[in-house]
Amino acid sequence: MELWYYEDYITNYRLGLRVKETLFSGKTRFQEIAVLDTWLYGRTLLLDGIVQTTEKDEFMYHEMIVHPALVTVPKPKNVLIVGGGDGGASREILKHPVDSVTLVDIDEGVIDISRQYFPQLGNWKDSRLSVYVEDAVRYMAKTRDVFDVIIMDSTDPLPSGVAEPLFSRAFFQDASDHLSEDGVLVSQIEPPFFHPQRIQKLWQHLDMFPIVKIYWGLVPTYPGGVWTYIIASKKHDPQKVTKNLPFSTRYYSRAVHEAAFILPVFLAEMVKRESDH
Amino acid sequence: MELWYYEDYITNYRLGLRVKETLFSGKTRFQEIAVLDTWLYGRTLLLDGIVQTTEKDEFMYHEMIVHPALVTVPKPKNVLIVGGGDGGASREILKHPVDSVTLVDIDEGVIDISRQYFPQLGNWKDSRLSVYVEDAVRYMAKTRDVFDVIIMDSTDPLPSGVAEPLFSRAFFQDASDHLSEDGVLVSQIEPPFFHPQRIQKLWQHLDMFPIVKIYWGLVPTYPGGVWTYIIASKKHDPQKVTKNLPFSTRYYSRAVHEAAFILPVFLAEMVKRESDH
Repeated sequence: MELWYYEDYITNYRLGLRVKETLFSGKTRFQEIAVLDTWLYGRTLLLDGIVQTTEKDEFMYHEMIVHPALVTVPKPKNVLIVGGGDGGASREILKHPVDSVTLVDIDEGVIDISRQYFPQLGNWKDSRLSVYVEDAVRYMAKTRDVFDVIIMDSTDPLPSGVAEPLFSRAFFQDASDHLSEDGVLVSQIEPPFFHPQRIQKLWQHLDMFPIVKIYWGLVPTYPGGVWTYIIASKKHDPQKVTKNLPFSTRYYSRAVHEAAFILPVFLAEMVKRESDH
Repeated sequence: MELWYYEDYITNYRLGLRVKETLFSGKTRFQEIAVLDTWLYGRTLLLDGIVQTTEKDEFMYHEMIVHPALVTVPKPKNVLIVGGGDGGASREILKHPVDSVTLVDIDEGVIDISRQYFPQLGNWKDSRLSVYVEDAVRYMAKTRDVFDVIIMDSTDPLPSGVAEPLFSRAFFQDASDHLSEDGVLVSQIEPPFFHPQRIQKLWQHLDMFPIVKIYWGLVPTYPGGVWTYIIASKKHDPQKVTKNLPFSTRYYSRAVHEAAFILPVFLAEMVKRESDH
């Protein structure tokens, strides 16, 4: 007998993964959560039925959401992660000589399940890491901390989804106010092909930053196989980085960093800031 | 009622496309052939059940299999396409100021169906194009023509598949003998993640060329979302190209050309020539 899970994320398109077994299936206060053991990608985390990360290719996403921002800031000391309850982004940040990493995820269930089923994703014992279970909008409103990098590793900004308020102009303004003058913010922004109008909106919501750019990377488990990231910076241009990482990586390199900002012609056109059209 | 087609190409992985209707389904002497009208990608050509090309994203593949080679050769005059019966590669080549394009496809059925259902893919009326329905191995053995570029746009080198002989050392030697001293050969080589050992073999089969490199591009309909291409050159390094295209493109650009040779660390390691390990 064969078991298959079909992800219904992009209209008229399905990703099918053959499943060995369901390791966990339940509901948190905010979303449905499941862990499947798949033949191709190993353990696979799903939120509301959508693949978030898998054992085999999580490094591609987590390296690319973290390292470009961390090398853009000359000496990043304090880093905030919005979301990121699976632990992968914090693990990558903690490879840098930072002083503190603050992880704010609204859903304790995601953190608990990730620690249990994906222990290699996180570096939970590192004393530089602080974890808060809280709505990031509320956290940001009340904290007085200032960060050098903010990594937005949330679920997608689906209309009326749990992550939608995180993609508002008000939240980005608040984030900008909590960034040091060297500061950089990066967010994953879902696959580029399917909802370019949502990316158009983002440019407008990030217009308090003088430098905003889009880069991309592979994530074979995501629809279309690529993922895009938006990076907003107060001072330093992420395309003019000369720092090398002091540790080894599986996806990221200086050359990959540079190439990631080169978009195919149609894609560059699709995600261009509207005022540039 | 919803109709879905699930492609079984990569073990334990399925691509599902919602289908409006089946426009054609039949058998040629060599393979099963089908044309589906899909909601997401428009008309979709399948050979032996595997997606070959779709209306919406065919330009990504056809631009990337053609232009890097055509700009590497200083003045390409005569170009051979092995396979390519859908017409897309020849359409892109004919945008260059070449003297002749020779298309050799073993399967007349693919050419006929493509001309009927994908008329915009080909530029069949251009008088510089000659089409031969023939086994490319036999064609190569008997022709005395010399080419500046050979584009191998065949189906994948599946063990005992119709395209397998095209990926043998003997065929590449024959191809090399039919290339001018400026000559370049390029072949699509299936997605990189799943069968790296087949790519290892290719390095050995192409060792008569002093310069062999791998580059990649997006094709959202293919499993994993990216495709790799191998380019073998007698004299000119495809990474040292300064020519610009005299026409507009939707995927390719000079910057995209350069970035396409930058592979993520794990992928560079996976497809590295064995002697370099």
